[in-house]
Amino acid sequence: MSKFVYDFTEGNKDLKDLLGGKGANLAEMTNLGLPVPPGFTITTDACRHYLDNGATPEGLDKEVSKYLKKLEKNMGRKLGNAKDPLLVSVRSGAKFSMPGMMETVLNIGLSDKSVQGLAKQARNERFAWDSYRRLIQMFGKTVLDIDGEHFEQAIEAAKTAKGAATDAELDAEDLKALTTTFKGIVSAQAGIDFPQDPREQLDMAVKAVFQSWNADRAILYRRQERIPAGLGTAVNVVAMVFGNLGDDSGTGVAFTRDPATGAQGVYGDYLTNAQGEDVVAGIRNTVPLDDLEKIDKKSYDQLMKIMRKLENHYKDLCDIEFTIERGKLWMLQTRVGKRTAAAAFRIATGLVNEGVIDLDEALTRVSGDELARLMFPRFDTSGENITTLTKAVNASPGAAVGKVVFDSETAVKLAGAGEKVILVRRETNPDDLHGMIAAQGVLTSRGGKTSHAAVVARGMGKTCVCGAEELEIDAVAKRLTGPDGVTVSEGDVLSIDGTSGLVYLGEVPVSASNVVQYFEGELAPDTDDLVQAVHTIMSHADAARRLSVHANADNGPDCARARRFGAGGVGLVRTEHMFLGERRQLVEDLILAESDDDRQKALDALEPMQRGDFTEILDAMDGLPVTIRLIDPPLHEFLPDLTELSVTMALKGDKATAADRRLLEEVRRLHEQNPMLGLRGVRLALHIRGLLEMQVRAITEAAADLAKAGKTPKPEIMIPLVATVQEMEISKERVEKIIAEVEAETGTRVEIPVGTMIETPRAATVAGEIARSAAFFSFGTNDLTQMTWGFSRDDVEGSFFSRYIDLGVFGVSPFETIDRDGVGRLVRQAAAEGRAARPDLHLGICGEHGGDPQSVWFFHEAGLDYVSCSPFRVPVARLEAGRAAVASGGSDTR
Amino acid sequence: MSKFVYDFTEGNKDLKDLLGGKGANLAEMTNLGLPVPPGFTITTDACRHYLDNGATPEGLDKEVSKYLKKLEKNMGRKLGNAKDPLLVSVRSGAKFSMPGMMETVLNIGLSDKSVQGLAKQARNERFAWDSYRRLIQMFGKTVLDIDGEHFEQAIEAAKTAKGAATDAELDAEDLKALTTTFKGIVSAQAGIDFPQDPREQLDMAVKAVFQSWNADRAILYRRQERIPAGLGTAVNVVAMVFGNLGDDSGTGVAFTRDPATGAQGVYGDYLTNAQGEDVVAGIRNTVPLDDLEKIDKKSYDQLMKIMRKLENHYKDLCDIEFTIERGKLWMLQTRVGKRTAAAAFRIATGLVNEGVIDLDEALTRVSGDELARLMFPRFDTSGENITTLTKAVNASPGAAVGKVVFDSETAVKLAGAGEKVILVRRETNPDDLHGMIAAQGVLTSRGGKTSHAAVVARGMGKTCVCGAEELEIDAVAKRLTGPDGVTVSEGDVLSIDGTSGLVYLGEVPVSASNVVQYFEGELAPDTDDLVQAVHTIMSHADAARRLSVHANADNGPDCARARRFGAGGVGLVRTEHMFLGERRQLVEDLILAESDDDRQKALDALEPMQRGDFTEILDAMDGLPVTIRLIDPPLHEFLPDLTELSVTMALKGDKATAADRRLLEEVRRLHEQNPMLGLRGVRLALHIRGLLEMQVRAITEAAADLAKAGKTPKPEIMIPLVATVQEMEISKERVEKIIAEVEAETGTRVEIPVGTMIETPRAATVAGEIARSAAFFSFGTNDLTQMTWGFSRDDVEGSFFSRYIDLGVFGVSPFETIDRDGVGRLVRQAAAEGRAARPDLHLGICGEHGGDPQSVWFFHEAGLDYVSCSPFRVPVARLEAGRAAVASGGSDTR
Repeated sequence: MSKFVYDFTEGNKDLKDLLGGKGANLAEMTNLGLPVPPGFTITTDACRHYLDNGATPEGLDKEVSKYLKKLEKNMGRKLGNAKDPLLVSVRSGAKFSMPGMMETVLNIGLSDKSVQGLAKQARNERFAWDSYRRLIQMFGKTVLDIDGEHFEQAIEAAKTAKGAATDAELDAEDLKALTTTFKGIVSAQAGIDFPQDPREQLDMAVKAVFQSWNADRAILYRRQERIPAGLGTAVNVVAMVFGNLGDDSGTGVAFTRDPATGAQGVYGDYLTNAQGEDVVAGIRNTVPLDDLEKIDKKSYDQLMKIMRKLENHYKDLCDIEFTIERGKLWMLQTRVGKRTAAAAFRIATGLVNEGVIDLDEALTRVSGDELARLMFPRFDTSGENITTLTKAVNASPGAAVGKVVFDSETAVKLAGAGEKVILVRRETNPDDLHGMIAAQGVLTSRGGKTSHAAVVARGMGKTCVCGAEELEIDAVAKRLTGPDGVTVSEGDVLSIDGTSGLVYLGEVPVSASNVVQYFEGELAPDTDDLVQAVHTIMSHADAARRLSVHANADNGPDCARARRFGAGGVGLVRTEHMFLGERRQLVEDLILAESDDDRQKALDALEPMQRGDFTEILDAMDGLPVTIRLIDPPLHEFLPDLTELSVTMALKGDKATAADRRLLEEVRRLHEQNPMLGLRGVRLALHIRGLLEMQVRAITEAAADLAKAGKTPKPEIMIPLVATVQEMEISKERVEKIIAEVEAETGTRVEIPVGTMIETPRAATVAGEIARSAAFFSFGTNDLTQMTWGFSRDDVEGSFFSRYIDLGVFGVSPFETIDRDGVGRLVRQAAAEGRAARPDLHLGICGEHGGDPQSVWFFHEAGLDYVSCSPFRVPVARLEAGRAAVASGGSDTR
Repeated sequence: MSKFVYDFTEGNKDLKDLLGGKGANLAEMTNLGLPVPPGFTITTDACRHYLDNGATPEGLDKEVSKYLKKLEKNMGRKLGNAKDPLLVSVRSGAKFSMPGMMETVLNIGLSDKSVQGLAKQARNERFAWDSYRRLIQMFGKTVLDIDGEHFEQAIEAAKTAKGAATDAELDAEDLKALTTTFKGIVSAQAGIDFPQDPREQLDMAVKAVFQSWNADRAILYRRQERIPAGLGTAVNVVAMVFGNLGDDSGTGVAFTRDPATGAQGVYGDYLTNAQGEDVVAGIRNTVPLDDLEKIDKKSYDQLMKIMRKLENHYKDLCDIEFTIERGKLWMLQTRVGKRTAAAAFRIATGLVNEGVIDLDEALTRVSGDELARLMFPRFDTSGENITTLTKAVNASPGAAVGKVVFDSETAVKLAGAGEKVILVRRETNPDDLHGMIAAQGVLTSRGGKTSHAAVVARGMGKTCVCGAEELEIDAVAKRLTGPDGVTVSEGDVLSIDGTSGLVYLGEVPVSASNVVQYFEGELAPDTDDLVQAVHTIMSHADAARRLSVHANADNGPDCARARRFGAGGVGLVRTEHMFLGERRQLVEDLILAESDDDRQKALDALEPMQRGDFTEILDAMDGLPVTIRLIDPPLHEFLPDLTELSVTMALKGDKATAADRRLLEEVRRLHEQNPMLGLRGVRLALHIRGLLEMQVRAITEAAADLAKAGKTPKPEIMIPLVATVQEMEISKERVEKIIAEVEAETGTRVEIPVGTMIETPRAATVAGEIARSAAFFSFGTNDLTQMTWGFSRDDVEGSFFSRYIDLGVFGVSPFETIDRDGVGRLVRQAAAEGRAARPDLHLGICGEHGGDPQSVWFFHEAGLDYVSCSPFRVPVARLEAGRAAVASGGSDTR
């Protein structure tokens, strides 16, 4: 028989799949001997069974009864007992932390009867009724799906009737009356009475937690965080402890290091006489954890000891929740804590320095996404006219500029229209998730670094400043008022600095990050501890990785930057990028040439320009390989737009000249229904006489000139869009003919390998044949994705992609992260069959996937030799290549 | 050491790869004891070596010397001996017959000295000098690449000087003088003297034959006939025999049956006192072979005996060339003869009836292409105003109508502009090949059924009437004059009937072929012997084949025809074809609907129309499966063209209404850069609410209605353009929901399997996954080809395809015949992995390849269950499916 329930004494931290993160860690702490309230965990298996079948699994009831009995025995109280009730919380806990995304119900076990017992036992009638009304409120919202607004309005009404400003002014009698009102709301809205049977409460709450896995906001969060939809959540049933039993009670959240900076030393918030959700929601302002030492030294000392123990045990930053009930400390949760990108690097290297982990392990503690975040620009406030609006909590670093919006709907709308927006809220809640995703940054007036806004923004790498109490936010009037009566309305621009907590009026210019300046060679590794940490990590990644990292760059300055950023070569020079601006006319002349003479004239004019381009690039990359792709795009990209030209001609009418008419005729003739599937790539090279020859001549001459000047140019020529070995053979023959000609003319020998992009599915399918005639393959995963799926990025990302992500057809766009099963399979197969045919075949990838962390891992596993990406992504790819190598045991997986 | 030379006594008919067709058959005849002039064959290996390396292989020289010595010994004469010279012919002979495509040099061995010896030995001075001038002329053209016009002009000049009307009037002295002139031409044009060393003549001629393999016209012919380019040709060196030694000599060409009709009885042409090329070129008019009986009964009887022996030996129609030298019969060539489509069917069944071959073998003697030719329409001459111009030789059957052109260049030009043309020539030669390809039909005034025009046209399945001597053709004036002075000029229309030999003025209406009428059920199998032959063959093909043949049909009449033509179901109903005409506006309304109401209104209007469509189709195919594809094309196919609309709007200027502007805006919004890669197929179904539901409802209701009426509708629903199993699952769920709804409403259960097209490369790659949720796959090979290669038919067939065929990138468009290595590999893989995941997965193909003979064989080999093609191609697919089954041993290759 399956086991669906685990006592905290039975689990451990490695059972996260089964017990969820929270349950596994509660068990771990229990086994470490820490003061954890007793309880048990219902497994994710049970959840998945419930979600699949709409019913809990056979036998779960009995198991729960058994573990509940044990819990009751342990606590010496019975659930919901009228005289001395055991109360429990029911909390969700999935494998991956989804803060605030799913449901919790506290105070299960209270009823019209047991509330009296609780009052007596706690010697606090107000506390008992407040607990009861909280239960009904939470249960109503969570389990019975009643709009929370009904309960909020009832509280407001009670306060108004009493003339009370805060909830605290409501006394026991008021809360008792409110409880009656709440029960009325439940009956009216849900059509059932609030259940008085504590076990019924428990069972209903457990099912509600199961179901909350598929709530819209949870689905959205998982998609954002790429958490698989099929995991399900565990449910933790824990004996209640109370932080709201008076001033000798309280609740707090803490980190074993500063999650924003990574600095050593505990860090947290504490709230006297409060329950946990009061801290997280940021509704009341907390005091720094250090103040607890003054309030309750014994608990403080014990907490410090526990936190040291936890960090040493987990060998990482831990994030904890605790409650003090009448002077007794209880640990409610721990987990490896989320952190900013800077903190991740500092903590990883800090732990290495402290001898806690080694460098391989350090690589697993940081990510390319985090490194990319550190490379974001920062505000440059050195100029004049920088007006600070306020300074508040630096909750998630970064520099964000945008138009102010006061609600998530508007944020989504404006962002959808291409605007950059800053979401300004008094405080955020899980319903604001889509607004936060849409915004550049988030600014709140309530809550600290552990508030919802702060935690979620950090998780997303989104800039966040919170707790800006100087700001008065009027969401209805869509206006905020700051110090000295300054007002900012919807649409006005703010700049928020999540690193410093400063908020500026208007747009502040941004400047490069220290990390970028370090990569640029402008700052030494020992400039500051963050740069030092990045330097340490990158050095180890470079030592560990098997993949080379090349860059996609089309001109000298980009190549030079790529080289500074650590590129070991250029994996893609897009020669068509050299045909823009003034040269466009020459290309148009080339295409429209009426005679061989005209065509040759255009080619002759282009050749020296191209030679200059290649000289600059090869010089910048001297000694490193430079893969130059011959011209690729459809010809009519260089011609006027057919529709625009047709309209112009129609309006000209009789005034159109013969040349006008000829142009229109040619544009019409060359127009393609599906240019991505038309005359482009190698087809062009075989179609327009002299184009390939001109490009190859320019490359070879540039290389010969540099070689004569004592340099070491290493050009490689790449034929695009090949689908058959014949195309490769014919082009290669023509390329080699020109190379030989130039060698004879210049008397200089330059080794120029000729290879191809693998970007049509057919090329991948017949790669073994193509390899016979290609010195290298570079996977063009943009086109390969396009053709394998049969959709073009231009056409579909704006139309049905978001719908497809909603429907779960894919979790992330296959243009962003390589589609392992489809496109990835073709890549693996082509690599294997290419290498089988030509063991020294050099393999790379130059699509945009080359700078995507997950894709870099895939290319490492597929045994490629290098990835090539935009210069700015080179450090990210280096880091991920190192991480992938460490994860696969550092060995060559080929 | 390799062996590069085979004596005729060493080879046999199965060595065609090595000895070419001619050499292998000469050896076969030699071994049968037939009178073949002695000789030897230089192998295709030697040719390939020469073509690859530009030099003959090591040792060939010595081998030739050895075999030449043997030949000389055998003949008792030495090559080019001054007193009694042995003369030889050097003839090309590739594996596949390429009539007239490659080079031959006769009379090798003649020189200024040996011509004297020949004159004495032959006792005929004129003959000797004529032979010598022929050698110089042929050698000059073929070996030395001199324009033949120079020699022709010299002959004309000699005739003019003498006042002679024909060559025959030139006497020995004239020819001797002409020989001197010819040698002068050679020296002047080629820069070398005509070689007097006979062995040098031989070696140069052999190399010229090797080289002729890569002559332009040979390349063009191979491409047309799909003969691989890498085979090379063999060279036959044969002792000369002379048909031009007087009236007791002659030469002829014959068939063991009539190659035009397949009728039993020998058939051929004979020319007294002539050499072989005089017959083939059609320069002089031949007499029927029967007349030989009167001229030379002994030779005639011997020839008849030999022909019977050959047909029994080869068990097929043989085509022979022979020469009679002073009363002695020599066999110069035999091969299995080309024949018309009708003859192929009649001969195959005739041989079965005669007990020579069995029905399986008969299937290998006919082809789908031939069957298709028999289904071409014929002239309907029952009407009035049909004016016959002339009647001549019915050289290649069919009915062709077109504008008259008098040269191949004009034929190509007009055909390229979309005109149908009839190529009219006095006689054709290999240089006319491109004109014949371009023309609907060919009409000549000289030559019989074995003339160049007749042989080549039959090979191409092109209509041809030849030997129309009543017509006087003036190619310069571009005019022909017929009986009674009727003139026809370039551009006038003629109708030519290759079956009857009749030529009509103007356009004659055409009517269906007997074979089509038989398939239609309008004619009984015993109507005539051709229909009977087709019936016999088709019955056996149906019995032998494993593949079912379905049809692509979108309406009731097409379905009914498909059924009559033997379709076992409908493999593809394209529902978008039902949205044309008046309904287009409804689709536009649907797309542009501003509200749910508007959209629903359009859907509600479409649904009964669709139901009507499906009722008609399901009724026509009652009891047979009908695979209905949900709407597939990009939406904007149903909207106005963006460019046209933009021009219209620009011209309207201020007069444009708000509705006009809205339409333009929507069309612009929905416009896609690459519609083939855009919002179409299943993406549409998941994008436009209600569209899928409307179609499924219409299908299910139609089926339920028919089922209630006692019929057996068998609809299947096919989801197009699927790339992921998720798309399949989501659509299937929605489809099954509607089916269940309609079942509940109508109380009628209809089994409707739901499957998908495999037409994106990704679908093929993850077919194993998709099969979990699809009851069937139908390979959409049009789109699959498009995406696998990365080119769209619309865009590339007009632009670079012909260049690609010229370059040999592919031999035939992959849209026409399935690309086995690329697309085919994906099909095989998807079929295997789909079946592995779901053993009862039903597999078919509904792209245009379903009606292409070579592709049908591939699908048979790949283990598919059925092919689906246009109704008219159904018999072709049935036949090819039977042939493929027989070829693979009739067993199931799955």
